[in-house]
Amino acid sequence: MTRIGILGCGGRMGRALIGTVLATPGAVLAGGAERPGAPDIGGDLGLLVGQDALGLVVGDDPAALFAQCQVAIDFTAPAATARHAAAAALSDTALVIGTTGLGPSEQAAIAAAAGRVAIVQAANFSLGVSLLLALTELVAARLGSAFDIEILEMHHRHKVDAPSGTALALGRAAAAGRRVSLAQVARRSRDGLTGPRPTGEIGFATLRGGDVVGDHQVIFAGDGERLSLGHQAGDRGIFARGAVHAALWAAGRGPGLYGMTDVLDLG
Amino acid sequence: MTRIGILGCGGRMGRALIGTVLATPGAVLAGGAERPGAPDIGGDLGLLVGQDALGLVVGDDPAALFAQCQVAIDFTAPAATARHAAAAALSDTALVIGTTGLGPSEQAAIAAAAGRVAIVQAANFSLGVSLLLALTELVAARLGSAFDIEILEMHHRHKVDAPSGTALALGRAAAAGRRVSLAQVARRSRDGLTGPRPTGEIGFATLRGGDVVGDHQVIFAGDGERLSLGHQAGDRGIFARGAVHAALWAAGRGPGLYGMTDVLDLG
Amino acid sequence: MTRIGILGCGGRMGRALIGTVLATPGAVLAGGAERPGAPDIGGDLGLLVGQDALGLVVGDDPAALFAQCQVAIDFTAPAATARHAAAAALSDTALVIGTTGLGPSEQAAIAAAAGRVAIVQAANFSLGVSLLLALTELVAARLGSAFDIEILEMHHRHKVDAPSGTALALGRAAAAGRRVSLAQVARRSRDGLTGPRPTGEIGFATLRGGDVVGDHQVIFAGDGERLSLGHQAGDRGIFARGAVHAALWAAGRGPGLYGMTDVLDLG
Amino acid sequence: MTRIGILGCGGRMGRALIGTVLATPGAVLAGGAERPGAPDIGGDLGLLVGQDALGLVVGDDPAALFAQCQVAIDFTAPAATARHAAAAALSDTALVIGTTGLGPSEQAAIAAAAGRVAIVQAANFSLGVSLLLALTELVAARLGSAFDIEILEMHHRHKVDAPSGTALALGRAAAAGRRVSLAQVARRSRDGLTGPRPTGEIGFATLRGGDVVGDHQVIFAGDGERLSLGHQAGDRGIFARGAVHAALWAAGRGPGLYGMTDVLDLG
Repeated sequence: MTRIGILGCGGRMGRALIGTVLATPGAVLAGGAERPGAPDIGGDLGLLVGQDALGLVVGDDPAALFAQCQVAIDFTAPAATARHAAAAALSDTALVIGTTGLGPSEQAAIAAAAGRVAIVQAANFSLGVSLLLALTELVAARLGSAFDIEILEMHHRHKVDAPSGTALALGRAAAAGRRVSLAQVARRSRDGLTGPRPTGEIGFATLRGGDVVGDHQVIFAGDGERLSLGHQAGDRGIFARGAVHAALWAAGRGPGLYGMTDVLDLG
Repeated sequence: MTRIGILGCGGRMGRALIGTVLATPGAVLAGGAERPGAPDIGGDLGLLVGQDALGLVVGDDPAALFAQCQVAIDFTAPAATARHAAAAALSDTALVIGTTGLGPSEQAAIAAAAGRVAIVQAANFSLGVSLLLALTELVAARLGSAFDIEILEMHHRHKVDAPSGTALALGRAAAAGRRVSLAQVARRSRDGLTGPRPTGEIGFATLRGGDVVGDHQVIFAGDGERLSLGHQAGDRGIFARGAVHAALWAAGRGPGLYGMTDVLDLG
Repeated sequence: MTRIGILGCGGRMGRALIGTVLATPGAVLAGGAERPGAPDIGGDLGLLVGQDALGLVVGDDPAALFAQCQVAIDFTAPAATARHAAAAALSDTALVIGTTGLGPSEQAAIAAAAGRVAIVQAANFSLGVSLLLALTELVAARLGSAFDIEILEMHHRHKVDAPSGTALALGRAAAAGRRVSLAQVARRSRDGLTGPRPTGEIGFATLRGGDVVGDHQVIFAGDGERLSLGHQAGDRGIFARGAVHAALWAAGRGPGLYGMTDVLDLG
Repeated sequence: MTRIGILGCGGRMGRALIGTVLATPGAVLAGGAERPGAPDIGGDLGLLVGQDALGLVVGDDPAALFAQCQVAIDFTAPAATARHAAAAALSDTALVIGTTGLGPSEQAAIAAAAGRVAIVQAANFSLGVSLLLALTELVAARLGSAFDIEILEMHHRHKVDAPSGTALALGRAAAAGRRVSLAQVARRSRDGLTGPRPTGEIGFATLRGGDVVGDHQVIFAGDGERLSLGHQAGDRGIFARGAVHAALWAAGRGPGLYGMTDVLDLG
């Protein structure tokens, strides 16, 4: 049995993770934490998800949570995640990170922690998106620059950043297939007099609206034909299920920074 | 028989217009003009489109062309179109304008000319897009702000502006349905920390690649459901056919600034 | 306050309807019934949806349920719905019917009952689909037979009939726009040597898989362009919300067979 | 220089092939044939495609054509293609076959001929579709039967068979990925009371309309997510270019029945 802790347990994703851990054979809910001052602190984790009380109280100290679990799951915010990674390394606790929008220093903190513990980091924990990333790299490597690569995503009206972390991960996969750096070829949006599309560019376009869980599409547009690879998430549960699956995989594994490609053995 | 002249007759759209005029019953090709110094000047209009010589030479003087035709078709560039409109008004020649990306002063020149002659102006001359504009206004008027409106377009890699003129026209139709001004609610692209989507916003997203003639989609995203209205052009010929159809309609009509809604009686 | 009863209250849709009635201001849950011998009979309606007990027991006698409510909602099966309609007429109870796959005699039973009470019948109770039906009729009326009409739908792997009731309703809307009978122009599927597509045909195509709630698309395909009108349901809750909205509208209304176009005043 | 002959040279695809051979470096047009009694027989191949006369006359004897070329391209009809394959084997001429809708005996004739000469056979000669076939097999092998596989295609109103040869080829690729026979799991269309979707089924759906060149989509629908791989042909030229590319590859190659996977080295 693997003891799993949930960071940011009071949020929408945190609650989904609690429910999924409770429903997953082989997983045990070890506890949950929220940021100091959050309204759910002191409440019971079971009641938080509309189930019977579990006798587990929402805390505000990540280190105390790490002491109680073998692996923790973190879908919070960039600065918090960087602190969590450092604390997890000190505590010898594995970490699954789904936070997006990380800056270079936050990413460096994660890399440092991964020298001490196993960390699984992904922009998207669904099986379908993990496959989509692999296919995107493969097709980008096969099709030359006569095919233009464009990445489209749509998410719900509450999402605060653009393009999505998954869209950027798809861009990095496409760039890897072409053996270039995404930073040098990315066009993150278009407005006004853009001029003709440069050869080799990887373009992004972002839609927001309704309660769309997450749509992504990678388009390879050539002369006379278009190939498109798409994924549509209909249910936030696929991310929670994938993250708990990753947590079970990470517990007891050696130090390293892993991705869903490793977890799913899609290499 | 209606005598039709083609401005910008040497370009890709100009050549398509020549071919369409030649193939349209009731239409006669009166001549064509290019900008001074263009390579096609002095050439024969028939040879320009791979047909037999017609004895009609590409000129560089719009006023001379207007003197020979009842209506001219103009898919050129904003500054040229503004000059053409003024010259058409002096010459009492109707004008069909498909140029996009016009600024306020250029649009004012067209409005002034429309006080003297009939001008049909549209961002897109296809029957399908004209219907799409009408449907977009209708749906936007029916669905309240609980449905978020997003407009997506994709065009070929040579297109130099974003969003497309048609996408912006769809945005104006949606805004008209909601009785607001597009300028006050438009979000022309998204990148970085955008924050949650404001209620009432009309968003745009732009894709570029391959030789895509023109795809447009209007999405109304609510809680638990999405309605989407889309148009896909597979063949540039639909624009030329629509423009020539508009030219036949405009010839001999009274002064005014008309749209395809008028030409197709979609009111 | 409107007293609402739920037929087939133990099924997936029945439970969603119970939850929605409980959450809707102005609506009161009057009771629920299941077919004789169903496992949920005798259970409490509140417990059935994971809430506190309500003191309302699942019965097996529709007439007894009708005696307790002003309007009942029925998403059951064709033969049962025909019997329910007759019983509702005797009991002077309005009825909202979402059952699909009805045969002519079952439909006749509903029409007969509608001479005595208000019945709202729809293949799909979502706001978006109701609009889609109206748009489909409008576009079919505008575009001549140079545009071919095709209707595509996708539903989850558990759905047992094809095409969906909503797809057939879209077909009837398209046929109405063209002033023809769907039965005379419908092509419900294609396999083998079909020959060229006859002008005026309205074609259907059916996809099944996963847990897709319901996607519908109406395509108008002409020379060089395609117009498509699509709807995607992401959450079964939109149907329950629409059906409860229709029930509130129907209670106390005069006899007649109504559709969502009436309820939403889309006429 | 490779000498290429065109069977069915007077049809729409035949003319496209003539133009493409004439425009392809390294390719020489050797001649063309039509079925006895066809109206184009005796005409010049150059004039047939709107170019200058080439001094090459449309014949009606495939054996005579094979004697003049190293490789022939055949997009005709099943019975004719079976005869052509036998004649090509006798003449030691390689063959590229794009004919679809072949029955078992016709396919057997091709297999027999491939024991003597190189034959490239494909349902679709585009680069994008060739990749799509490879991706479909790969994904089907990765995703278990918890993901339902559905294949959707749309073609123009003149197409006489359903599903398209390419759709069936995609079905075979999916079945190969799952290590089953397509014949045992294919559901070629759905109409009426189909019952729940059986696990492992591979479903097809067919749309027809307008002048759509060819759209194909493979959908993998699981719980809470959908992965879809799509291809859209915008221009019939991609098939002619791919077939001529295959002809250059086949000329001088040893006997065998090859596919575009071999030609493009997608193995």
